[in-house]
Amino acid sequence: MFESAEVGRTVDKKEYAKRAPELRARILKAQQALAATRLRLVIVVGGVEGGGKTELARRFLDWMDPRGLRVEAYGEPSDEENERPEYWRYWRTLPPAGHGAILVGSWYTRTIVGRAFKEIGSGEFDQALDLAMAFEAMLIREDTALVKLWLHLSKKEQKRRFTELQSDPDTAWRVTKQDWAFSKKYDRFRGVCERALAKTSVADAPWTVIEATDRRYRDLAAGEAVLAALQAALKRPPPAQGVPDRAKPPKISVLSRLDLTRRLEDGDKKFEKQQTRVALLSRRLRKEGRSLICAFEGVDAAGKGGSIRRLLGAIDVRNARVMAVAAPTDEENAHPYLWRFWRTLPRLGKTTIYDRSWYGRVLVERVEGYCAKEDWTRAYAEIVEFEAELAESGVIVCKFWLQISQEEQLRRFKERVKTPFKQYKITEDDWRNRAKWDAYQAAAVDMIAKTSAPDAPWTLIEAEDKRWARLRVMKAVADRLEEELG
Amino acid sequence: MFESAEVGRTVDKKEYAKRAPELRARILKAQQALAATRLRLVIVVGGVEGGGKTELARRFLDWMDPRGLRVEAYGEPSDEENERPEYWRYWRTLPPAGHGAILVGSWYTRTIVGRAFKEIGSGEFDQALDLAMAFEAMLIREDTALVKLWLHLSKKEQKRRFTELQSDPDTAWRVTKQDWAFSKKYDRFRGVCERALAKTSVADAPWTVIEATDRRYRDLAAGEAVLAALQAALKRPPPAQGVPDRAKPPKISVLSRLDLTRRLEDGDKKFEKQQTRVALLSRRLRKEGRSLICAFEGVDAAGKGGSIRRLLGAIDVRNARVMAVAAPTDEENAHPYLWRFWRTLPRLGKTTIYDRSWYGRVLVERVEGYCAKEDWTRAYAEIVEFEAELAESGVIVCKFWLQISQEEQLRRFKERVKTPFKQYKITEDDWRNRAKWDAYQAAAVDMIAKTSAPDAPWTLIEAEDKRWARLRVMKAVADRLEEELG
Repeated sequence: MFESAEVGRTVDKKEYAKRAPELRARILKAQQALAATRLRLVIVVGGVEGGGKTELARRFLDWMDPRGLRVEAYGEPSDEENERPEYWRYWRTLPPAGHGAILVGSWYTRTIVGRAFKEIGSGEFDQALDLAMAFEAMLIREDTALVKLWLHLSKKEQKRRFTELQSDPDTAWRVTKQDWAFSKKYDRFRGVCERALAKTSVADAPWTVIEATDRRYRDLAAGEAVLAALQAALKRPPPAQGVPDRAKPPKISVLSRLDLTRRLEDGDKKFEKQQTRVALLSRRLRKEGRSLICAFEGVDAAGKGGSIRRLLGAIDVRNARVMAVAAPTDEENAHPYLWRFWRTLPRLGKTTIYDRSWYGRVLVERVEGYCAKEDWTRAYAEIVEFEAELAESGVIVCKFWLQISQEEQLRRFKERVKTPFKQYKITEDDWRNRAKWDAYQAAAVDMIAKTSAPDAPWTLIEAEDKRWARLRVMKAVADRLEEELG
Repeated sequence: MFESAEVGRTVDKKEYAKRAPELRARILKAQQALAATRLRLVIVVGGVEGGGKTELARRFLDWMDPRGLRVEAYGEPSDEENERPEYWRYWRTLPPAGHGAILVGSWYTRTIVGRAFKEIGSGEFDQALDLAMAFEAMLIREDTALVKLWLHLSKKEQKRRFTELQSDPDTAWRVTKQDWAFSKKYDRFRGVCERALAKTSVADAPWTVIEATDRRYRDLAAGEAVLAALQAALKRPPPAQGVPDRAKPPKISVLSRLDLTRRLEDGDKKFEKQQTRVALLSRRLRKEGRSLICAFEGVDAAGKGGSIRRLLGAIDVRNARVMAVAAPTDEENAHPYLWRFWRTLPRLGKTTIYDRSWYGRVLVERVEGYCAKEDWTRAYAEIVEFEAELAESGVIVCKFWLQISQEEQLRRFKERVKTPFKQYKITEDDWRNRAKWDAYQAAAVDMIAKTSAPDAPWTLIEAEDKRWARLRVMKAVADRLEEELG
């Protein structure tokens, strides 16, 4: 793969003086066109040390409109980053619609360095690359013009460049000990990178390997690649419109089989026992380097709010936060779907409770047609990946589906209308959604089937009796905490 | 002040059972009303250790709708917080319009503890309280229902409570070594708190001191205070409408006296020299625990973009970010005016360059009437305070006003229309703003007069000649860096 980037490509001054301004004008024009769309530009600049990644980023800043274009260099993670899944830092720096980012270093860096120094095995390496590919696939489907550039130098050229920099007092600081350490392992790096690039060069997100020996050639080749990616993205058809999905639920399903007659009589003692378990276990989260996420789903009036309130009663409120998932803000709309959930992930020791969650994509958005079928169908896999990342980083994930009967829902709606301090809970939407009962049940059945995972299991709650439901939720959280904290 | 909170107020079970549900319903109703407005609710819960701050927060979460209401307990600052001004953590956790926050601990905590342990002197203490008051005054003027509750226990009662908690194995963990350390200094704390509360109990933001010995009395008294604050905020008149301000600039001013004939001929060497100074000095920021902010203001086509581009050319692009200040997002609109700038403050070693800045409030918003006169007039002092906070925390602040003549502006507009890759820079707005030349000059003259400070000086740039302007900017940044970094 890299041989073809060691053939001695150069651009002379004259040619550069002719081509660069033309290219710049075209890139600038495409950038302006992008600014008016839902698209974002993400330029990943990878490559060997000494290849000029930062120089190239500077060139782009110079060529393009630096407003709305930021350079991200991922150095040592901050403690806030270390306390979240690895990709949190990539999510938090994603540019919004119309903007761009030049990433000097990326989600490949740690993986490649780790493998080159044999800190991770080949299985873990491939797994990390799979994660990178899933992330990129999501980015592309969510309106991103993604360009992946790889700046290559031959072993000889790298060494020559380091030596040259070091011999000049003005530039010697630019060559670090790490650079020499990497240089010594050039061959090993080369093999690892070759594997990484080959595996992750997919049709939608290919790597452009650029011979970086000659700076003029490097900049023009990189610019051409960015221009091509921008133009291709701008030509993409507009996103497909959603259509309401009114599937029928299967006659027999995990939901129909729930025994909604379960009731709890005189269960105060039992409830208190579970509450104490949660209280004691949740206090250990910080010490054990863990955090907790509880997501609540269920039809309107299924009792999500009441269960959340009881759960909050067991957890130190200074460490807990309830996110009520309503209509996204415009900043959220300007980012990929899961961004709004990534931004609310708890730090170590903390708990985030979601009153409705990322499952909205495969529930309300599916049923109401708020997104295209291709969007909610791909969401299952994206959600499974998301929760796997959470679990991998030590987040304990609990997911609840609260099931009630249609009759019970009606009874609760009527009660809400009557009770002054519950009136705010009932809206026109609730009555409308009721008419789509079957569609929501069908969506829930699919969701449960497609997104259950050992590290992120669904707990189905018979919620016809509120007290029973609350006990079940509390016990499930206690059990999960115990299982995970040992 | 605290004597009146040691008189033995209690509420018996029967009275509580009667009053609590009524109070709860009224608070809930007010909270729902708030959710539909531009208002946010901020409940500061302060008080002695053992007074039940967290218990009270839990009670509020239970009484109110926990969705859109979060509890913030400010523990040890994270490294990202430590690398910004002290109030950054308060700004970042401010709830948006319609939402609320219960702050267990607040901007008073560090100040009071620091003074009680004599880590800070009386001058520094009062200065910190002034900052708190300025922050609160801003919050109130920017649509906040602010409630400040202080839970008080007598020395005897505090000791009794700690001893009681410690004797029960289930609650012993709640009493920390720090609690006992604070308890030993009860009298000293009492004096410090008394001074803090007296000084910061202003008409708009009074402290409600609550006798916290009896939990039922405590909760009802706190609830009543929150209800009163909510109701008062909901009754506030709607914000005043802005009116375009078309002041005339003074005949002789700092701007009229600039010598716009200054030109730079054959200045490449001079420019490079300054660029190198900036490059070398800016590399030292991280090591010296500093960061850099450069704000650029000036009429359209004054050359802000070109100067920024040159400046970027001197700074390591991995550490720099350009913020182009355009229309605020809806999340930004749901927060106080300066929030959007607080959220983009650089970490240590980093630079944020603002292409237009927080001065928009006293420039475009004043001239166009986007905000009421009372808003832009109070903005001067708020901005001075903001920049003082930046400087205090080690941010090096550079502010530039780029001055050109009306004739030069027209020439540049015409050039932009002609040059393909500059066309994007010119919009209808630019032509419209040109008609308001005098009003903008008047606003700029006022701004410069009211917001110059030793730590955040304005540099006025004769920008008629672009090359001269760029050299002046680069030299000014280099000089500031040198002055600050020594």
